[in-house]
This record gives sequence, structure tokens and C-alpha cells, in this order.
Amino acid sequence: MTDYPGFDFEVTRSVTGEDGWPGAARRGRVTTPHGIIETPAFVFCATRGALRGVLPSQARAETTQIILGNTYHLMLQPGAERVAALGGLHKMMGWDGPMLTDSGGFQIFSLGRGGDEKEIKGSRTDVRDPSLLAIDEAGASFRSYVDGAKVTLTPEDSIRIQRQIGADIILVLDECTPYHVDREYTAQSMGLTHRWALRSIAAFNEAEEGSAGPQGLYGIIQGGVYEDLRKESAEFTAAQPYFGYAVGGCLGGTPEEMDDVVALAMAPLNAAASSPRPIHLLGVGSVRDVWNGVAKGIDTFDCVNPTRLARHGSAYIRPGLGETQNGREFINIKNARFREDPTPLDPECDCATCRSVSRAYLHHLVKAGELNAVSLLAVHNVRFMNRLLEDVRAAIDNDDYAARRAYWIDG
Amino acid sequence: MTDYPGFDFEVTRSVTGEDGWPGAARRGRVTTPHGIIETPAFVFCATRGALRGVLPSQARAETTQIILGNTYHLMLQPGAERVAALGGLHKMMGWDGPMLTDSGGFQIFSLGRGGDEKEIKGSRTDVRDPSLLAIDEAGASFRSYVDGAKVTLTPEDSIRIQRQIGADIILVLDECTPYHVDREYTAQSMGLTHRWALRSIAAFNEAEEGSAGPQGLYGIIQGGVYEDLRKESAEFTAAQPYFGYAVGGCLGGTPEEMDDVVALAMAPLNAAASSPRPIHLLGVGSVRDVWNGVAKGIDTFDCVNPTRLARHGSAYIRPGLGETQNGREFINIKNARFREDPTPLDPECDCATCRSVSRAYLHHLVKAGELNAVSLLAVHNVRFMNRLLEDVRAAIDNDDYAARRAYWIDG
Repeated sequence: MTDYPGFDFEVTRSVTGEDGWPGAARRGRVTTPHGIIETPAFVFCATRGALRGVLPSQARAETTQIILGNTYHLMLQPGAERVAALGGLHKMMGWDGPMLTDSGGFQIFSLGRGGDEKEIKGSRTDVRDPSLLAIDEAGASFRSYVDGAKVTLTPEDSIRIQRQIGADIILVLDECTPYHVDREYTAQSMGLTHRWALRSIAAFNEAEEGSAGPQGLYGIIQGGVYEDLRKESAEFTAAQPYFGYAVGGCLGGTPEEMDDVVALAMAPLNAAASSPRPIHLLGVGSVRDVWNGVAKGIDTFDCVNPTRLARHGSAYIRPGLGETQNGREFINIKNARFREDPTPLDPECDCATCRSVSRAYLHHLVKAGELNAVSLLAVHNVRFMNRLLEDVRAAIDNDDYAARRAYWIDG
Repeated sequence: MTDYPGFDFEVTRSVTGEDGWPGAARRGRVTTPHGIIETPAFVFCATRGALRGVLPSQARAETTQIILGNTYHLMLQPGAERVAALGGLHKMMGWDGPMLTDSGGFQIFSLGRGGDEKEIKGSRTDVRDPSLLAIDEAGASFRSYVDGAKVTLTPEDSIRIQRQIGADIILVLDECTPYHVDREYTAQSMGLTHRWALRSIAAFNEAEEGSAGPQGLYGIIQGGVYEDLRKESAEFTAAQPYFGYAVGGCLGGTPEEMDDVVALAMAPLNAAASSPRPIHLLGVGSVRDVWNGVAKGIDTFDCVNPTRLARHGSAYIRPGLGETQNGREFINIKNARFREDPTPLDPECDCATCRSVSRAYLHHLVKAGELNAVSLLAVHNVRFMNRLLEDVRAAIDNDDYAARRAYWIDG
């Protein structure tokens, strides 16, 4: 088995196999060369090497444990060679904590690009229409959104590039299948993903370690919404010498279907848990998804929503608080009802924003188009997700999962 | 004389009347209800209640002493009543240090609106084409840039609104004359400004104090580039019961002419210095302007450039360092020469940006259109101006003015 110097994963508390809540929730600790991640944890997206609206020092102050950079974006701009020459992404962007890179696989988002409205929102939807040109056995080719040049990405390229970028946790290249893909395509795609995985592992073992030190490799489980394929993919992935796993691809058309698909993927992984590995759920991170995903055994989540919502004037609020509308987990501060509201964004929050300014002020800044609104909202949203995950961890530690889940979601 | 409880101005060192450098430079200390301003000092523009790209905690960390809000912008959005209802601008925006508000006078920028290319850049040029409709004895009327409504602003309105906003230092309403205005217009305009000043003082004495406590009133010296008018306006202003003075209006078409015009304005004020009052130079703040203005006796400066330059991808660098081009005091980080540059923005700077990231990273962020570039550049530019003013103060304290000025400007 591949050795992962400087890495460790320890499950400190688990409730494997119970029905309902906490289900298979577990508390853990991922050790990386850049520090420890207490799990369950949220991974924040710094797509092009910047967490939009939040500087690294602010992210740290709001108790962020780990961030994520995107291989596809960074390989195009500024280029992996440049990142390596600047000492790797940690040093380049001034973040000295744990970091993960996506493999570029989400950009290989075949067939359904442009988005099916019924697809789960937040499911790795940070795609920038990268103009996928072709997928074949060798890899995928794109039209660069930066300069229009044709770019190819093979499994070996992805590993090499992620070595240069130097994140602690790196992912194998996969094909990410969208919603409404039929079984035949999904099965063929999964086979390709598995063959790419073996090539990725070989490349990982041959390549120099990352620019910022040793790295831990995660495999990706595909198989769409098809029970037998998810099982096959999970079993294949569990048999490889990965440090961890990620669950990717189509997770269904409704939150309930997503719960089922995640459960399908997790069963073989949980069964093989004599030597547990951390499990990441790609591109998912609503309040409800986090509570439900953790109960299936998920350890980490990522989602662009904390910073994306901020750019759209929105702030997370615990849905159970009763202040959100239409089933949302956030308020839009531009709404006229906040014009004269002297209270903080979130009465429960201890972030720098909630400790210093009111909803009325943020409403004013958003209406005036002031840049600082984005920062203030993003700082809150980051702290909100970290508070959520802190409570998830406490709920596992304190045998209080069902009640805390209900408190967050239903109030 | 009007009493200013909670206010004080003390000159701790002065070199009145010398030719050249340090000329009439002086070190001082302005005491306000929200803290002390060591002078000479730079005032940062938070036009609509936000220092663009820099949160109050960051501004404080970069040693900012005082910020400025704009009465005209805030009266339109969110409205002075709203600011007052939220506890005043200090509380609303989360800044607990000294603060100043402009009177709205810069929006009464008659005749030459739209800008003469030869006018000194940085001279209160943050005008948003407010569609000045008319100026008469009563006041000025505008078309609101927010909703198109007709808005009138009288001297009494300006005082009342500034009382509601609640800054520590507030200004009387004036008409700000542009470059190339003839002597006749300038003389008439100055007369109007003086009559408005007397009404402002009366209104100040009648009005309730500001929402954040007592306030200090500054008069404004007009008179354009005409020696006799500047003298008349300075003498008139010096005779009023102000806490301080501001030098406004047209300062000439070249840096040299500006030095001369400032000197004209200052002479009567310096002559009446038995009970010194702080003197602010409105809308001016380049490196050269600061050294030269201080040598004429100026205590404080304001300019939108630290945050505006950041929004355009530029960072201040000491011009004497030899890294800037075409006589500029800044570099544009988007320039290709910075693409691979691993050094900090400014090798001399101790700001949070220069301590954490490289020029190459900032180049990447600007090229990628990433929001964080603006914050990182603005944080640097704020600290740069504060470092400049720290060095000006040290130069006065250490009898080293001529050498330090030459070091900053010529290297």
C-alpha cells in the first residue's frame, strides 16, 4: 500500500450502522502536513487560489480548517508551473493550513453541460462552461476559457499538475456524470473513471511529491444513481491504496434521492472500515445535506455557496430559526424588510460581521453596490458553515444528533 | 467663541516660517471624542460609509487614524435619518475612531463639472456627476443619482444632516470652484461661501449635537488661485469660531501652482497662530503633495486614491525607490513585468498583504478578475499612506525633513 508520510486518519467516535440519526455518523481527525482537520468538516472553495471576499487571515479567524483549489482553473491561470515556481498554492496565496485540490474531473462533466434544472443545486456547479471538446480513453480536451487554446487533461497530467500545485489532499481524475444519464452511459463512464484511477495511482507513485510536501491521494466513486454501479465503484475504490475517498457524480434529482445515492456509495466503504479512510462528498453542502451526509458516514463536504451567496447579497441563517422564506437556508439582505433592521445578520453568530454591523447597514451597502458588502457577507457565511460543523461534531460527541439536527433544520 | 467639548488641538513641534524644508511644518495632536489623531495625518475616504475593499478592523490594523464619510452620498442613501436611527455613522459602519464628514460642498462644483484635464488630479474628484441643477443664495439643488428626485441642500441642511451622521469633525457648506474660473466668478462664489459659513455657524450653535456626541466645526477657505481672494477668505475664516480650517476649491493647474495657492491660503492662518487650529487640505494626497503641503503648515489630507487605485489594480510604491514609471507613485500590478515576480508589492512595507503574498499572485488575481485583489491592494495602499505620514511625523520630530522628503520623492 502506498505510504502517506505526514498523514493520518483516526476515527474518534462512531455510531456505525444505526438507522435514522446519527446513523453512521463519526467523529474523526485527519492529520496532514499542514495541520489537523477535525471531522466532520467543511472545505471552502478557493477556485482560482482565492476564497472570494475572504482573505486567508479572515478565513482562519472564522475557524476555517481547510480550503480547496481547482486544478482546471489554476492550470489555465496562472498555470501549474507558475504556482510551483511561487512555492506551491499554500505559499502563493498565503494559506498555511490544510488544502485540497479537485482533479479537474468536474470540468469533464459530460452530456448534460449547461445544467438540468432538476439536478441537485450545489452539486459541483461551479463549472464555467469550459467548452469540453472530447473525452476518450487518453483523457479530456477543452477549449480554454482564458485564451481559447485547446487544452488536454489526462489522468497523468492531473496528478502532475496537482503535485505542482502542492495541496495536501489531491484527487484522481474522473468523469463526472450528470443527472438523467442512462445506465449504459453511466456504466461505460464508470469503467473509464476506474481505468483512469489506476493510471492516476501509478502516476502518483512515480511523481515527485508536491511543491509543498507530501500529499494524500483520494479516489472518486462514480456510478450515478444506479445501485449496482455505485456498489461496484465503491468496492473498486475501496480496494485501491488511497488515503481517502470522494463521492462524486450524479446524486439524484431530489434531496431524498441524494440521501439514498450517498447511502449506496457508502455501504461498501463503511463495510471495509477496519482501516478507516476519510470520505469526502463532492460539491454538496447545504445545512440539510451536511446533517444527512454525516449520518451516512461522510467526513468532509465542499460547496461554493458560502462565497457565492455572499456575492448575491445573501447570508446563511439557521433554517430552524424561522427567519428564512420558501424553505431557504439564507436571507437576501437586499430585501426591503431589512432596510431598517438594527440587528445583526444572524442573532446566533459570533463572526466579525455579526459582531460589528447591522442588517440595515448591509442592506445599504448591497443597494449601493459597495464591495465591502461581499466581504462582510462572505465572512459571515464562512463562520456559519464552520459553526454548523462545530455543532455537528458536538452532537456526535454528546450523543445528541437527532435533537441537534432537528433544531438546525426544523427549529 | 463656540465651545468644543471633548476636542483639543495641540501643536507639539513647529518650525514656523522657514523657507524650503521643513518650512512651516508642524507636529500636532487633535483630540476628538473618538480618540486622538497624531498630525500630520491622512484621512481615508469611506464615501458611502465603507472604505472600499478595507473593513474597519483591517483599516485599524494598518494604523489608520481617521476616516471620512460624504454627506451628499449618505443623505441620499441610506439617508441621514436612517444613519441617525442606527446610532450614527460610527456605530452603523463599525468604526469607533475619529471621523470627518464633507459638507456636500464638493458636489456644488460649479461651472466646470465634468473636469478640466489640466486640473490637479486627486483634487476632490470623487464627484459622481450629481446633476447640479442650481445654486442660489439659499443653497444648491441637485438631481439625486439614486432615484432622480430633486434634492436641495442649504447650509442649515448640511449642518443638520452632519449632526445626524455624527462624525467628530464636520464642515460648513461651500461652493467649490474649479480650475479656469475667472476672478469675478471666484470672488462672487467666495462671498456666497462666506455668507453660507455664517449661516452654518448659527445652525451649528442651534442644533443638537451629533448622534455620536459633540462635534468640531471646520470652516473652508475658498478664493481660487487669486492671491487677494485667498487672503481675504483665509482672514474671514480665521475670524470665525471654528475648531479647525479646511483649504478647498481650485488649487491651480500644476503641482507647483498648487504649492503656491496653498501657501497663499496658509499665510493668514499661520499668522493668527497664537491659538492654533488644525488645518485640512481637501482632496489632495499624493506623496509629493503631502510633503509639500505639510511644509506649508497643513495638518491633515484626504484623497480617494488609496482605495481607487486598488480598484484599478495599482499599488503605491515610494517613488524614490525607482520602481515606478512615468513619474507615478504607484505600480499597476497587471503589468506583465510582475507576472513571475515573487517579491512583495512593496519591499519596504509591513502591511498584511506585503507580509503574505507576492506581486505574481496579485497579478494573477487581477488578471482573473478576483475580488480579493482589490482588498489586498487596498490594504497595502492604506498602510502605505499611513507609513508615509508616520515618516513625515518622524521627520519633523527628528529635524530631518529635507532629507526624508528627498528620500521619498527622489530616492
